[in-house]
Amino acid sequence: MDMRAYDVILKKRNGGEFSTQEIGFIVGGYARGEIPDYQMSAWLMAVCLKGMTSRETGDLTTAMVRSGRTLDLSSIPGVKVDKHSTGGVGDKTTLVLAPLLAAAGVPIAKMSGRSLGHTGGTLDKLESIPGFSVDRTPEQMVEQVKQIGAAIAGQTAELVPADKKIYALRDLTATVDCVPLIAASVMSKKIASGADAIVLDVKAGSGAFMKTVPEARELAAAMVEIGRHVGRGTVAVITDMEQPLGRAVGNAIEVMEAIDTLNGRGPADLAELCAVLGGLALVLGKRSRSRENGERTIRQLLSDGRGAEKFRQIIEAQGGDPTVVDNPALLPRAPLVRTVESPNAGYVARLDALGIARAATALGAGRGEAGASPDLAVGVYLRKKAGDEVSVGESVAEIHGRDEKSAGRAAELVLNAYSFGPEPPDLRPLVHEIVI
Amino acid sequence: MDMRAYDVILKKRNGGEFSTQEIGFIVGGYARGEIPDYQMSAWLMAVCLKGMTSRETGDLTTAMVRSGRTLDLSSIPGVKVDKHSTGGVGDKTTLVLAPLLAAAGVPIAKMSGRSLGHTGGTLDKLESIPGFSVDRTPEQMVEQVKQIGAAIAGQTAELVPADKKIYALRDLTATVDCVPLIAASVMSKKIASGADAIVLDVKAGSGAFMKTVPEARELAAAMVEIGRHVGRGTVAVITDMEQPLGRAVGNAIEVMEAIDTLNGRGPADLAELCAVLGGLALVLGKRSRSRENGERTIRQLLSDGRGAEKFRQIIEAQGGDPTVVDNPALLPRAPLVRTVESPNAGYVARLDALGIARAATALGAGRGEAGASPDLAVGVYLRKKAGDEVSVGESVAEIHGRDEKSAGRAAELVLNAYSFGPEPPDLRPLVHEIVI
Repeated sequence: MDMRAYDVILKKRNGGEFSTQEIGFIVGGYARGEIPDYQMSAWLMAVCLKGMTSRETGDLTTAMVRSGRTLDLSSIPGVKVDKHSTGGVGDKTTLVLAPLLAAAGVPIAKMSGRSLGHTGGTLDKLESIPGFSVDRTPEQMVEQVKQIGAAIAGQTAELVPADKKIYALRDLTATVDCVPLIAASVMSKKIASGADAIVLDVKAGSGAFMKTVPEARELAAAMVEIGRHVGRGTVAVITDMEQPLGRAVGNAIEVMEAIDTLNGRGPADLAELCAVLGGLALVLGKRSRSRENGERTIRQLLSDGRGAEKFRQIIEAQGGDPTVVDNPALLPRAPLVRTVESPNAGYVARLDALGIARAATALGAGRGEAGASPDLAVGVYLRKKAGDEVSVGESVAEIHGRDEKSAGRAAELVLNAYSFGPEPPDLRPLVHEIVI
Repeated sequence: MDMRAYDVILKKRNGGEFSTQEIGFIVGGYARGEIPDYQMSAWLMAVCLKGMTSRETGDLTTAMVRSGRTLDLSSIPGVKVDKHSTGGVGDKTTLVLAPLLAAAGVPIAKMSGRSLGHTGGTLDKLESIPGFSVDRTPEQMVEQVKQIGAAIAGQTAELVPADKKIYALRDLTATVDCVPLIAASVMSKKIASGADAIVLDVKAGSGAFMKTVPEARELAAAMVEIGRHVGRGTVAVITDMEQPLGRAVGNAIEVMEAIDTLNGRGPADLAELCAVLGGLALVLGKRSRSRENGERTIRQLLSDGRGAEKFRQIIEAQGGDPTVVDNPALLPRAPLVRTVESPNAGYVARLDALGIARAATALGAGRGEAGASPDLAVGVYLRKKAGDEVSVGESVAEIHGRDEKSAGRAAELVLNAYSFGPEPPDLRPLVHEIVI
């Protein structure tokens, strides 16, 4: 008997488990336009409310990958490792980690998206480097990785078209925050991008999609399971996103901070996160025998300048001006800098990542709902973070703005993001746990 | 802030309770084409899986009624009572009950649908009477009820357009068997039809939509609650549909059995059901002080011929030939009658209503999925029902068919519907319970 979408929807509604064929039928049929939106949205809602087993989630991922073309990295020698973050405030990790992995001999062909968030995505940040191009054909990417070990480009529309179509529907039908659907969406893009192994940075906290560690753990476990299902070594690190990562939040100012970090002068949390994620990537990439060994290698590359050198090579290979690595003043700068002063004496008890994100949005650093181009020059620089001591009138942050009005609004939001207390607070760890 | 379909969907997904405004927004917006199918189907699936309170179900019903026009019966004196059955095999109750209620002084303006089931609906059955027309304008219906107390016509598309649109979507998205949605669908049509009070016949068993008494009870309670919510006296009777009602299953042959019943010669189960439903209707219609009193009145009208006389008046008023009531041979007859013989001696242990329904479908008595016209002449006549004694080779049923092929297939299905045993079986009651 022919398979019918109706019966597949009914099966999940009644709490049943899909066969591999049923999932392929729904995803393939929807991607080809044979199954209408109204059946797919009922299917998605039933999946959200009844859940899926890890086998079903794995099959969903595979079916989504099959909806489009995949990148073939097999001509590149070595174990190709990819890295993905679920997104946070001030997260410029990719800019630091890609050169470090390449410098350590782990090839990385990274496809990034343009986020709709409070700042631009990795691609926007890179485009603040004069001349840098993120438009690479798959063939150009492979060639560049063969030559210098790393490439970072925009994701082609030909990869996982089912994800794009399903995501648009989820966004209209209140089926976005559903772990198996999120996990399959992320992993399908990583798998289609051709990497052999994947390191996931799953953020937890105010500035992340997952607000708590248990929620982040559930998503991390679902993604690691998918990796197992499709035979790609996958490790997830649950990291804190209660306050922003590093001190810079914006686009060009995040690139500056990434360069500082590659030059051994970056903020401690960013350097630590790169060491943890990089250490795991080196193990997956068979360049280190243990996490500890891998972390030591990463810290070495940060201090001896070889990470910075690799970043120069990447910039040059993609048409950009490599001298920014030595002279970050070449990056776009906002016309106006305004200081936010502490109204209290004592300690920063909490610094709310979401509040800082809203300030960055108010400055125009993000893409916004209408998809407008982000202002690459603006942003927030945090002089004080949770646990820091402050005196009355001391600067806690700098606003880099385009005009007085938006800067004033952002300053207000930044100040609201700070809480002060008389005692040093208990600090949350940067790395909550590792899910293997 | 403007209401958004997304937020209303999300509310139910998270287990919340809709406000009256939210339900009106969704139903009205969908009926007007402002909310797309894909959002409505996600909403429907969330409702199916998370349920609705009786207040929400009442509000849903009211919002559906408001999507179209309503029948105004206020110019007809007395308490107007309507009757609805959730559908069963051999259910010709409306044909008997409408004349009886009118004869007892309870006005009834009945709007029926054309079912997609195994036999035609009430309208198809009536159309087997030569000349009978079910096309009445609302004004004609009101006039006829004023004159003779009863009218039975097809439902106009102007009544509850939201129900039609929502049902079509449910039928494609596996959201049909959901108690609040079924209850609101049935009750919205009854309420829009203008009756002051409603008697519901909720069937339970093999030949019904609800297979068990507990399921039927849940639906009955939901519908009675809606009646309370909108201030229309509503009573539900849960009746058995494990075997067909009466002995005739088809279209014209069901009309013959209805006429026999009105002439005091009908099968005991059909007469009893009419007495129970009619007794309650007379109480709701303020024509009897008690159920028992009402039942007695109904049985009297069956034996003294006044129900039959009222049926003649209805037929005549709607353009049909009233002499069929005295000469049922004027109804269409199938060209071929074939006997089904018992292979066993003993008792009929079980007679499966669904099996008999399938036989009627095989004969062409139904409308089928393609919506073809039902063959009004064909059907199955059951000589033996559950509990009856049989000997080997004795006739258990007659097939009234159009041709040998379909009759042979039907005979096979009919025989399969019978189970035999050596002892008299425990019989299920006809009336399981009354839900007030």
